[in-house]
Amino acid sequence: MIRINKNYSKLQASYLFADIAEKVQIFQNENPDKKVIKLGIGDVTKPLPNACIQAFHQGVDEMAKEETFRGYGPSEGYAFLREAVSRHDFQKRGADISPDEIFISDGSKCDTANFQELFSLDIKIAIPDPVYPVYLDSNVMAGRTGEYDNGRYKGINYLECTKENGFMPEIPHEKFDLIYLCFPNNPVGTTASKEYLKQWVDYARQNRSLILFDAAYESFIRDDSPHSIFEIQGAKEVAVEFRSFSKTAGFTGTRCACTIVPKECVAYNAENDRIFLHSLWSRRQSTKFNGVSYPVQKAAHAVYSDQGQKETRELISYYLGNADIITNAMDSLGYEYVGGKSSPYIWIDGKGRDSWEFFQVLLSKAAVVCTPGAGFGRCGDKYIRISAFNSRENVEEAMQRLKDIL
Amino acid sequence: MIRINKNYSKLQASYLFADIAEKVQIFQNENPDKKVIKLGIGDVTKPLPNACIQAFHQGVDEMAKEETFRGYGPSEGYAFLREAVSRHDFQKRGADISPDEIFISDGSKCDTANFQELFSLDIKIAIPDPVYPVYLDSNVMAGRTGEYDNGRYKGINYLECTKENGFMPEIPHEKFDLIYLCFPNNPVGTTASKEYLKQWVDYARQNRSLILFDAAYESFIRDDSPHSIFEIQGAKEVAVEFRSFSKTAGFTGTRCACTIVPKECVAYNAENDRIFLHSLWSRRQSTKFNGVSYPVQKAAHAVYSDQGQKETRELISYYLGNADIITNAMDSLGYEYVGGKSSPYIWIDGKGRDSWEFFQVLLSKAAVVCTPGAGFGRCGDKYIRISAFNSRENVEEAMQRLKDIL
Repeated sequence: MIRINKNYSKLQASYLFADIAEKVQIFQNENPDKKVIKLGIGDVTKPLPNACIQAFHQGVDEMAKEETFRGYGPSEGYAFLREAVSRHDFQKRGADISPDEIFISDGSKCDTANFQELFSLDIKIAIPDPVYPVYLDSNVMAGRTGEYDNGRYKGINYLECTKENGFMPEIPHEKFDLIYLCFPNNPVGTTASKEYLKQWVDYARQNRSLILFDAAYESFIRDDSPHSIFEIQGAKEVAVEFRSFSKTAGFTGTRCACTIVPKECVAYNAENDRIFLHSLWSRRQSTKFNGVSYPVQKAAHAVYSDQGQKETRELISYYLGNADIITNAMDSLGYEYVGGKSSPYIWIDGKGRDSWEFFQVLLSKAAVVCTPGAGFGRCGDKYIRISAFNSRENVEEAMQRLKDIL
Repeated sequence: MIRINKNYSKLQASYLFADIAEKVQIFQNENPDKKVIKLGIGDVTKPLPNACIQAFHQGVDEMAKEETFRGYGPSEGYAFLREAVSRHDFQKRGADISPDEIFISDGSKCDTANFQELFSLDIKIAIPDPVYPVYLDSNVMAGRTGEYDNGRYKGINYLECTKENGFMPEIPHEKFDLIYLCFPNNPVGTTASKEYLKQWVDYARQNRSLILFDAAYESFIRDDSPHSIFEIQGAKEVAVEFRSFSKTAGFTGTRCACTIVPKECVAYNAENDRIFLHSLWSRRQSTKFNGVSYPVQKAAHAVYSDQGQKETRELISYYLGNADIITNAMDSLGYEYVGGKSSPYIWIDGKGRDSWEFFQVLLSKAAVVCTPGAGFGRCGDKYIRISAFNSRENVEEAMQRLKDIL
């Protein structure tokens, strides 16, 4: 008899954004004439940069001619893209990451969800609360947790991010084997200083742990925070980094990202031998993945042209301009928040309101969609996340509506 | 201490096609003036159909304008593509598959590798020998096997495909929970009749098993074999099917495929309750996957236009013409084979030669690359696979070279 993976039954209901979409749909059905403004899911709204569009078309044209047609590409991505990522995103910042340490993929969601496959089921995991739900859910599905109880999975160590610690995970006293970190943070919008990340790298080196570092929002950094954990000395042995074109260049619907696995990065087998994660991930990807669409890789490559760099900077500045409008509105309404400076996310203290209740108030009274903090973990119970990904007009209108009802 | 998944250490060396690529590279380095003709990996060589190119460009243009720009799409794919697949590939053939039973993905390799995640680790698995290595490797990585020993993984039940049984897996007497089948078959090129598949469906219904049916090569069928297992009555409760645009429309470098999980399809929990796989796969995909690039889905959709249907039929006929040239050459050389009629693959009996040895003979004497049968399993030890995916000129030249040396 074909038996299911019993761990799936531990998963809580459906995925957060599917829940939100359903509630929004119900509201829209009941109020067909109301214009709903979505500042919930972190999805971009501006078109792809022209540089990317041109390269994308060129890539498609190459697929039209026998001489330039491309069949299966390397599962780890084309050299032209890996070289550009290495040079622009790492070498230029003093992080010594070579092209063959970069694995191109169709999204950071897949990569952050799949990377845990490389590890034993009995490792001790530390995950921030609040957090991007994929880190948690993928470990639940794999069987690394117990049941869900009172907002948390048994067997996961939650690194609480609260007002008291400035919404930054504290370096634990206990030994954890795998730690998920994300900076600029989703959902709270905080950034990490070099000194702060150095403490994590030291911790991981001392405890032979591994840090999975999600840098999907690095292009929003406008202060002197490091853009990569590999700007920290010693990180290459103990960290893997996830990067994405989704937020940097509007690729959420185009799909391209990359994962950096330095050649020195290690885990251990039962005999305590050092095993290089680079070869394990390479094996995983070459077995279960067949590379990213060639024209998409061409489009991603154009991000690194002069025009592409200029356009993506403007794109990010546009969204950060929206973030300013949101934080100014919160200031004037007397709501406390973090984020919104080097991040598209603003994490707002609901003044004691339950987060789903606050979500419903904004939806039903202002037709504005935010994300309830509880969807990201128990520490988000009294917060909502507002995202700066929308048009200037919509953000201005949404903030005006909030000023009218709050 | 961060511990690796010990199951990865059971995997045999590197992936088959990486091994072959390395041997070809060595030969090419030593013989820089020789023109190597690759009939090994099953990769298409003809450009994308014009209908797809036009739609691909349109999709890119939509990404350039704010009004038509698409961010995150549904993880299960856009309705326009799911509806076209349902109508053309299933409803027209009398297989009652609805659009919401179709999950669009970036490749059948990912889907066939990932689907096993839905099941318990202690199920009994049956896999043909020879076989596409991904079915095996993904189960090894998940921990469903013992060590590799004498060409086989302990704990896997191999369904031997030999000359004696016409290279068709026989219906087992034993009860297996999960069975992988692929028709038209990769690597041997055989097709399955309705009567044959009916036996498997009956077997699965009797034993509450699940069939994972890989139909990546269905568009090559030129006899009256069913194109889908869902053309068999009763299959919807016991089968999941994998489809791909890779071979149908030259999408190996463009990346689009789909997996069909009928709503009636079930597995069982520990209490023997029926659990619908549709909701499990939906949860898996929405958690770990973020959908296929929008312009790629537009390009795939164009396969179903009148022009797209005409062009893809011509594309397949072209490769089948190559297959004819290969089978004619084998006939004249007195080699026995199967496949090549409703399949791009020809499975050739090496007259007692070891398959890697035969591979080396063709490479070193004729600069022709085939795939050694042993790479697909122990039953392939004395066979090679030749693929029809190349230009007419190259296939003709390769066959002339084989005639000269064999």
